[in-house]
Amino acid sequence: MEIICVGNELLIGKTLNTNALWMAKRSTSLGVMVKRITVVGDDVEEIGVVVTEALKRKPQFVVTTGGLGPTFDDKTLEGIAKALKRKAEVNDKALKMVREKYEALAKEGRIERAELTPPRVKMARLPKGAKPLNNPVGTAPAVRVEIGRTVLVALPGVPSEMEAIFEESVVPLLRKESGNVTFFEASIFADNIMESILAPLIDHAMHDNEFVYIKSHPKGEEKTPHIELHFSTTSKDGKSAKDKLGKAIMQLSEFIEKNGGKVRVQKKSQ
Amino acid sequence: MEIICVGNELLIGKTLNTNALWMAKRSTSLGVMVKRITVVGDDVEEIGVVVTEALKRKPQFVVTTGGLGPTFDDKTLEGIAKALKRKAEVNDKALKMVREKYEALAKEGRIERAELTPPRVKMARLPKGAKPLNNPVGTAPAVRVEIGRTVLVALPGVPSEMEAIFEESVVPLLRKESGNVTFFEASIFADNIMESILAPLIDHAMHDNEFVYIKSHPKGEEKTPHIELHFSTTSKDGKSAKDKLGKAIMQLSEFIEKNGGKVRVQKKSQ
Repeated sequence: MEIICVGNELLIGKTLNTNALWMAKRSTSLGVMVKRITVVGDDVEEIGVVVTEALKRKPQFVVTTGGLGPTFDDKTLEGIAKALKRKAEVNDKALKMVREKYEALAKEGRIERAELTPPRVKMARLPKGAKPLNNPVGTAPAVRVEIGRTVLVALPGVPSEMEAIFEESVVPLLRKESGNVTFFEASIFADNIMESILAPLIDHAMHDNEFVYIKSHPKGEEKTPHIELHFSTTSKDGKSAKDKLGKAIMQLSEFIEKNGGKVRVQKKSQ
Repeated sequence: MEIICVGNELLIGKTLNTNALWMAKRSTSLGVMVKRITVVGDDVEEIGVVVTEALKRKPQFVVTTGGLGPTFDDKTLEGIAKALKRKAEVNDKALKMVREKYEALAKEGRIERAELTPPRVKMARLPKGAKPLNNPVGTAPAVRVEIGRTVLVALPGVPSEMEAIFEESVVPLLRKESGNVTFFEASIFADNIMESILAPLIDHAMHDNEFVYIKSHPKGEEKTPHIELHFSTTSKDGKSAKDKLGKAIMQLSEFIEKNGGKVRVQKKSQ
């Protein structure tokens, strides 16, 4: 799976990319690995290039977020159309979704008129052959299109909308793909031992625990080492996964203590 | 400029990418625009591919972060060497930097032995022709290499180390490149007006204020719209930049109020 995040606010350092974190975590928890995350600005050409490149790598899924709204700088669908060399045109089903949203808002007295102004119609302009997906939270439909074996889904950038559509329309696809494989993880923390001394110990523990991946994350200062050791594995069977992680954790903990380090179960408070 | 972030922790949704935010913000503030951010895992092949692709686009700068440490999963330098089709080999200057760091730590009694074990020597294995950069905070040197007109800098992933080296070794390059152009930004917040009604007003204000970019960020719920309007421009002249932003803000505020919206200077508290 690849994630593409669209938005100048991410490139100017205005907005922290919490959408990428959320999607990566959710997909991983369902056993689908994210191979790449790309952040690109609100530019049709650039979006087109990034989508074209992602599709060339033939991932199972490409999920984009951002750029689906009514303003001039919402350019994701145009960029995807460009990448697919298809026209973007008003999709009847999408237009019906948008119309119903505004009619409901007018009925509740939230807006004066429900009329389909050009910025509202814009949200229903999909690449030819794409299908709109229900947005249970906002007005802009999400979009799904298949290209060969790849399913491309375009989600809005507003986190509450992105998450709701992801749960409703993307999670079922991921579950089907991964066949109930789940991701398991656990961390321990090592004090008083430098990463350069840990390195061969990690190698050893990974060699002995074939399906467990161990990664060290230095957290403290150079001079008072405090290192997170993150253990992860994927499995269909929760019990065996936890046993594997437990065995690797025990072994590496012993190595660390033999080398003068101390093992904690929780992060040291700052 | 392009940013490449290396680390499985970013792809499994374990770690929020604050490094990308920091670098994007810092570069933008110096007038250097980030065009793309790519996140890739701890995999030599993948890192090699991502670096190769970035170099093909011939940006002025490519800055990578992560994967410079002593453990087996620190693979960035090997990946860069692959992309450059050069060997990675022990660099004398880098090795001297690493040795001096460990000797100092041993002198202070922080570690028992300063000997250059293989994991420590690994941090001095640079792509041929690359130069080490001083790391004022940690042990792993950063790396600089020129490819045609592109300067590639590889920084560690530990935020304090990344930031210190960026300030010391990257900021001077960016300043030289941008020639004292600076980025200016300001936000206002609009209530009681939907984004689809704002859209043509933003178009109008941007048309009348040529060098100002305006982007809307919905913050509230669909039914009680609260929208941030972010104004930005780049200029060598602070006074004229602020005048331009001020003029655009005044104009759009008037449009919003004429259309039944309310303008705030600060974000609505939740």
